[in-house]
Amino acid sequence: MTSLLREQTHDLLETYGRLLDEDRLEDWVELFAENCRYEIISRENREQNLPLSLMLCDNKDMLRDRIFSLREANIFNIHRDCHVIGLARVSEDAGITATAPYALFQSNQEGDSRLFSVGRYHLDLLQDGDTLRIVKQVVVVDTGAIPTLLATPI
Amino acid sequence: MTSLLREQTHDLLETYGRLLDEDRLEDWVELFAENCRYEIISRENREQNLPLSLMLCDNKDMLRDRIFSLREANIFNIHRDCHVIGLARVSEDAGITATAPYALFQSNQEGDSRLFSVGRYHLDLLQDGDTLRIVKQVVVVDTGAIPTLLATPI
Amino acid sequence: MTSLLREQTHDLLETYGRLLDEDRLEDWVELFAENCRYEIISRENREQNLPLSLMLCDNKDMLRDRIFSLREANIFNIHRDCHVIGLARVSEDAGITATAPYALFQSNQEGDSRLFSVGRYHLDLLQDGDTLRIVKQVVVVDTGAIPTLLATPI
Repeated sequence: MTSLLREQTHDLLETYGRLLDEDRLEDWVELFAENCRYEIISRENREQNLPLSLMLCDNKDMLRDRIFSLREANIFNIHRDCHVIGLARVSEDAGITATAPYALFQSNQEGDSRLFSVGRYHLDLLQDGDTLRIVKQVVVVDTGAIPTLLATPI
Repeated sequence: MTSLLREQTHDLLETYGRLLDEDRLEDWVELFAENCRYEIISRENREQNLPLSLMLCDNKDMLRDRIFSLREANIFNIHRDCHVIGLARVSEDAGITATAPYALFQSNQEGDSRLFSVGRYHLDLLQDGDTLRIVKQVVVVDTGAIPTLLATPI
Repeated sequence: MTSLLREQTHDLLETYGRLLDEDRLEDWVELFAENCRYEIISRENREQNLPLSLMLCDNKDMLRDRIFSLREANIFNIHRDCHVIGLARVSEDAGITATAPYALFQSNQEGDSRLFSVGRYHLDLLQDGDTLRIVKQVVVVDTGAIPTLLATPI
């Protein structure tokens, strides 16, 4: 595997976390390919092959709708995200894939921070010119007991 | 951007966290340029352009003084830091800049660990021979409710 | 230091965390050289040069035994690990050494996640063909008050 692909994947994951942390959700959607799938699933359901997701968008328009409804309609607790993404593994064995653990901390309007979710990203990636795009992302969460409505992406 | 600059920035951030964790505060100060600025500010104040800082040193001597007074005069709760710094972004668009999220955990003398602060570093950097030095650092903290006196740098 | 060695060390640490998180403990043992030492020690004891360890295996067979007994005999609280490993430092000054901070989160069967342990890895490494292996690992934990029996490796 080339060092370039490592750097590109690093940059994609860095951008992924930063855009969510900065509440730039519309820009975050643009990290995905047009034909994409984004799914959040508990580790328990994943291991037992149960289909139940915590969030599922199976194309980019669904992701756009989701963000639009977050902006316009949904009521949820206002918070700030901080994604700390750990060491990533990149592979080219069957297309470009990557995986990395994450810890997501949320802070509320009073400035109290708490551990919100830990788990692991699994990504299928596609070269699109100089850019890597996400074709498929499965967020496998260890934290099943989401203490408030899971509104924003992880 | 060169791979070398990426590696140098990675090394600077790694050293930054490690020196704080090892309580080598005097060595930590040496990561800064003589003409430097170090500021800790809440995300809320930053977004509203309010000038109120949680900590502000606008040259290296002020940083030295701060560390000296920590060593000699201040009374604060004894703790050990553990900085886990996430993926960094480096840019050369307008000078060398870098940003990275961090999670800072503190452990007390009884060995209890807790999440102390999450947020993001914003750095302006300068090549000084083979070394990168910090010209300006803004620590934007999501965690506003610092549960004890903010004594040591973040 | 070569970029290759940096990448190899990154990959070793990534694999280290991922194998533990996926409960692939037998594969995790294979990251170690035959002649190896794995020790978990509190920061307090390390700084005072006290020999008391929280876990000590001073060859690979002891590590294998430990994993075997975890699988076959021990009763401990069922949990899932998530290792978020921070920026690593690699050095070739006296053999290959590396150090990196870690945060280990554990989630129980109800899906509640908590901060389990923070601290720092100190590794002595050996080139074995294309692979890096761990000759000696000291896990220095800031979190002394392990809330449940320390069963699985950190």
